[in-house]
Amino acid sequence: MIAVLKQGTTQTQTEHLIQWLKDRNLDVHISQGKEVTILGLIGDTSRVDMELLSSLDIVESVKRVSEPFKQVNRTFHPLDTVVEAGSAKIGGGHFAMIAGPCSVESEDQIIQVASAVKDAGATILRGGAFKPRTSPYAFQGMKDEGILLLLKAKAATGLPIVTEIMNISTLDLFADVDIIQVGARNMQNFDLLKELGKTKKPILLKRGLANTLQELLMSAEYILSEGNENVILCERGIRTFETYTRNTLDLSAVSVLQDLSHLPVIVDPSHATGKARLVPPMALAATAAGADGLMIEVHNNPSCALCDGAQSLTPEQFAELNQKVQQIREVVK
Amino acid sequence: MIAVLKQGTTQTQTEHLIQWLKDRNLDVHISQGKEVTILGLIGDTSRVDMELLSSLDIVESVKRVSEPFKQVNRTFHPLDTVVEAGSAKIGGGHFAMIAGPCSVESEDQIIQVASAVKDAGATILRGGAFKPRTSPYAFQGMKDEGILLLLKAKAATGLPIVTEIMNISTLDLFADVDIIQVGARNMQNFDLLKELGKTKKPILLKRGLANTLQELLMSAEYILSEGNENVILCERGIRTFETYTRNTLDLSAVSVLQDLSHLPVIVDPSHATGKARLVPPMALAATAAGADGLMIEVHNNPSCALCDGAQSLTPEQFAELNQKVQQIREVVK
Amino acid sequence: MIAVLKQGTTQTQTEHLIQWLKDRNLDVHISQGKEVTILGLIGDTSRVDMELLSSLDIVESVKRVSEPFKQVNRTFHPLDTVVEAGSAKIGGGHFAMIAGPCSVESEDQIIQVASAVKDAGATILRGGAFKPRTSPYAFQGMKDEGILLLLKAKAATGLPIVTEIMNISTLDLFADVDIIQVGARNMQNFDLLKELGKTKKPILLKRGLANTLQELLMSAEYILSEGNENVILCERGIRTFETYTRNTLDLSAVSVLQDLSHLPVIVDPSHATGKARLVPPMALAATAAGADGLMIEVHNNPSCALCDGAQSLTPEQFAELNQKVQQIREVVK
Amino acid sequence: MIAVLKQGTTQTQTEHLIQWLKDRNLDVHISQGKEVTILGLIGDTSRVDMELLSSLDIVESVKRVSEPFKQVNRTFHPLDTVVEAGSAKIGGGHFAMIAGPCSVESEDQIIQVASAVKDAGATILRGGAFKPRTSPYAFQGMKDEGILLLLKAKAATGLPIVTEIMNISTLDLFADVDIIQVGARNMQNFDLLKELGKTKKPILLKRGLANTLQELLMSAEYILSEGNENVILCERGIRTFETYTRNTLDLSAVSVLQDLSHLPVIVDPSHATGKARLVPPMALAATAAGADGLMIEVHNNPSCALCDGAQSLTPEQFAELNQKVQQIREVVK
Repeated sequence: MIAVLKQGTTQTQTEHLIQWLKDRNLDVHISQGKEVTILGLIGDTSRVDMELLSSLDIVESVKRVSEPFKQVNRTFHPLDTVVEAGSAKIGGGHFAMIAGPCSVESEDQIIQVASAVKDAGATILRGGAFKPRTSPYAFQGMKDEGILLLLKAKAATGLPIVTEIMNISTLDLFADVDIIQVGARNMQNFDLLKELGKTKKPILLKRGLANTLQELLMSAEYILSEGNENVILCERGIRTFETYTRNTLDLSAVSVLQDLSHLPVIVDPSHATGKARLVPPMALAATAAGADGLMIEVHNNPSCALCDGAQSLTPEQFAELNQKVQQIREVVK
Repeated sequence: MIAVLKQGTTQTQTEHLIQWLKDRNLDVHISQGKEVTILGLIGDTSRVDMELLSSLDIVESVKRVSEPFKQVNRTFHPLDTVVEAGSAKIGGGHFAMIAGPCSVESEDQIIQVASAVKDAGATILRGGAFKPRTSPYAFQGMKDEGILLLLKAKAATGLPIVTEIMNISTLDLFADVDIIQVGARNMQNFDLLKELGKTKKPILLKRGLANTLQELLMSAEYILSEGNENVILCERGIRTFETYTRNTLDLSAVSVLQDLSHLPVIVDPSHATGKARLVPPMALAATAAGADGLMIEVHNNPSCALCDGAQSLTPEQFAELNQKVQQIREVVK
Repeated sequence: MIAVLKQGTTQTQTEHLIQWLKDRNLDVHISQGKEVTILGLIGDTSRVDMELLSSLDIVESVKRVSEPFKQVNRTFHPLDTVVEAGSAKIGGGHFAMIAGPCSVESEDQIIQVASAVKDAGATILRGGAFKPRTSPYAFQGMKDEGILLLLKAKAATGLPIVTEIMNISTLDLFADVDIIQVGARNMQNFDLLKELGKTKKPILLKRGLANTLQELLMSAEYILSEGNENVILCERGIRTFETYTRNTLDLSAVSVLQDLSHLPVIVDPSHATGKARLVPPMALAATAAGADGLMIEVHNNPSCALCDGAQSLTPEQFAELNQKVQQIREVVK
Repeated sequence: MIAVLKQGTTQTQTEHLIQWLKDRNLDVHISQGKEVTILGLIGDTSRVDMELLSSLDIVESVKRVSEPFKQVNRTFHPLDTVVEAGSAKIGGGHFAMIAGPCSVESEDQIIQVASAVKDAGATILRGGAFKPRTSPYAFQGMKDEGILLLLKAKAATGLPIVTEIMNISTLDLFADVDIIQVGARNMQNFDLLKELGKTKKPILLKRGLANTLQELLMSAEYILSEGNENVILCERGIRTFETYTRNTLDLSAVSVLQDLSHLPVIVDPSHATGKARLVPPMALAATAAGADGLMIEVHNNPSCALCDGAQSLTPEQFAELNQKVQQIREVVK
């Protein structure tokens, strides 16, 4: 870590600061220029509060020269992590094709969709049981019952399942869930991350709506630091000024995360765009960008003419998309 | 709520949609134009999933004509809510001057700061016991012990106290805390909001880093919908592309929230700017904008030359600021 | 266009507004609900100032039901526009592979790069002569001389050329330039757009750093409204809070623009990411997303070890990328 | 300027880079740590292309330790610049109260408003003659004639006038205009800035919708570098995800700009918020934040009931606001 001191900082102030840093077990290397003084901090700087340091009057700016994350860092773990979830593997060349409905609605629905997406090439079944909703008056999911229905679909098809947790008090319900999802709104619910770090369950961690890639990796670090290395990162769109799409899918995140970390990186184009029309092109783009998997909403509800065109694909559209995804994987691998 | 249908929507599709809406207990008023068909939805539209409706292929766009929040809505509750917390009142002309250190560090520290800020005009003491930190390796606060020390400071000075909760499992520790703070990262931790709604405690709800004002009000609605009307809204800066300041303080939020809701609105300039130098001008600006209170970091640590200039003010700076704040209140009230 | 009036609007106020709208040659269709009054405005609403209407006290909100752009609108022009520039065609299935250096530096440099990228599959040569720079002290390009050198490279290789204009007073210099680029910072330099609309030259219009897709289309409309239909739209990254990449490339823009407009849409991954390492994955992603072309920085400067790794690719890297791009085009077409 | 090299950079690569930097007339100070090598660049780094340097493969990151702007920098010019425009002074304790209509519409209108705002305390008259509009079909202003009418209003009231230039070819029309405004969309129209730098006219430079404060100062530097020191900076809101207000007014910009530069800083709350209701609280907030002036839309059109409530204030509302502004100036000065 480098701290640049402001012009006009006195000798006494500089010495105070150096002593304070040494008290935190850091070696300090001083580079006195004509105009500025630069302090190089050597040691375990991951414990130094960069915001506090930056906010000091005598400090012009602070810059990390090593990333603040350790266990998720590719530098110290060059090989790709491969996460195993039931019959599925993710990362290190293994591609996850996760598909299923936004919400679990009934036994018939989830088993039909599960069979359909399995036939169309899905390797993992998704479905929401606990639903985070902006409004307290909106449908909050089938909850416990939804998880039981997902387990029935898993039994019927053999597909491993992924579903979202919102509250650590419900962890017992997830005993037979293969991958536990942490949603965008809980990406910095640090107490939840720590508890999930104590399990060995694969965790699918979604990027928050306004979180940087470094913050996403620091949240993953919370999980790994408690002993759980089975983390899958998921880009799902960030909030910008653009209003034609629900969010702006940041596909450069795929390469950046793969450079910085050994963890697998998947992309969710359904939530990012909010329109079925945009899901196939963005799914193909994510694959071409090198993603380790996709998470796609698929429904199967022929009686509901309404649903055609929502952010979900039909199983037929999904099957067609999957074929192209596999062809693009051939090109970019 | 108004739904505009796309050109080319067939009669059958329109009828399907209308039936689907009627099944949700809505009356539908149809306005057939030459180019577009507009559906006016009448009834309790707060339960209609606007995102789902928007994502339908035949729907051009959806627009609410009434806000989706009810209990926080000023339309149905014209008078200002006044929140009472110990000796302090907030809202309806009562101004909250909340001050104290970022973190509770020791008994001496918190009692000294509490006395100092009380003398300087503070009406409520703040101090962090549970600290949400981006890094798992950073200091996470004194936790339980920090709350005990805050209670000692309360006993010593008579000031009501406010401190942050991160996990509903720790609620018992907050029995004698006067105001429970929900931090920006937990603004959409809906399970936490619901549980706090079941208490009668005043809740200080901070706006998330990338949340709209409507989302902030919907999160407040979660608390009120469970029976707790004692909610204080807090603007603390949003995330933008600007990097000179830690966040961008959105002061127009004060008037907009006061127009839309009866709840009191306070401003935290310390976290928003991250620099002590910017706290006084932004505190004065927030007061001039009509805020119902301020939340300001103050420390009292003469032995630590370092701390001068961080985002905290000294008690002397805070006293001087408080005088100007009171003068501006006279001008704008 | 729909205007929703606020509750409490009086009969007189409503009548005033309706008269004002009728004075602007609009028919007004009134839909009086129990809670709100909705006005449907029929006629040429592209001339109505939506911001003014929205800002009226009695107006709750205003919503367009038809896009404000006409000539760029696919609704009235269903077939893809194909722009022709020398030997190259763009749009309607024709893919543009634009490559070349950031700046023209010397005759040798530009002719060498031009030959190299031609051999590697480029169909158009790019190179900056007039360079918009944040700092007045930075290199501002070779200007007139740079354009002359580009023309020599065109003569030597037969590749059509594209280069940026910053000031309409220099238009004469562009007489033999095949495509005139309008940079992101000039996307809303309306006087420049109007003048370019009076030429028949192909115009490559880059999206501004913080402009919406609708604003990009409105700027294209400025050019078409003066009679020039030869416009190519270019996504080149938008400004967000993320700092790992220079900008955030918004690839969903490709499909959205192609849905809304008949104009070809290309992507510039070099400027968006600012790192050579990220150019190939994002170029492939853009192709998979359905872009009508790419614009990629390539240099050829073996004496400058430094340049390896900047945002430019070497001709060899570009040749390899081009092969994969063509393979992905086969998959997605 | 500091460049941090990546781990694994070879000796040869480092030497190449150092030679390249020395060729640019910089001294290089090398600090070789165990993990990283840091280069301190000494000399005129304002000419170094920071983006190019950052994009090199061997460079981890680059950081300026001195600002890239010189003539606008307070470090080298500690005293406040006072801009004089006719009878008005701005900066150094002189407060500018700029008021007038959005657009000049007729001689009667502009003379009436000018008289009304003068009586209410305005020191400068604003009014748009050339109007930048998103749509080519929207009213583009009265142009030349608008400027003539402004000059009549100036003659009638003695108020100095400010109006926007969009195109350097119209400069002659501004001979008797006291302050030339550069709008947000032209903040980085560098050719326009250079030409205005060759005049001695006061220039009111508005911050672009998505520009950083450093970019605003660099644009001002373009004007000063050509010899014109009469620049007034104007904060007018930035683009964020929030939709209740047209833009998000960034009031911390006032203090930051005043710290970094000697130029006066004013605030335009009318365009930022887009609602008359929000103009007074934000005008008061800007004053409390220490702004050197305000720019406020005022109209005077009793026959047009419509206009009440738009983003313009009436002269009466403006007079009342002005009184409070002056009271707040007393508190904060």
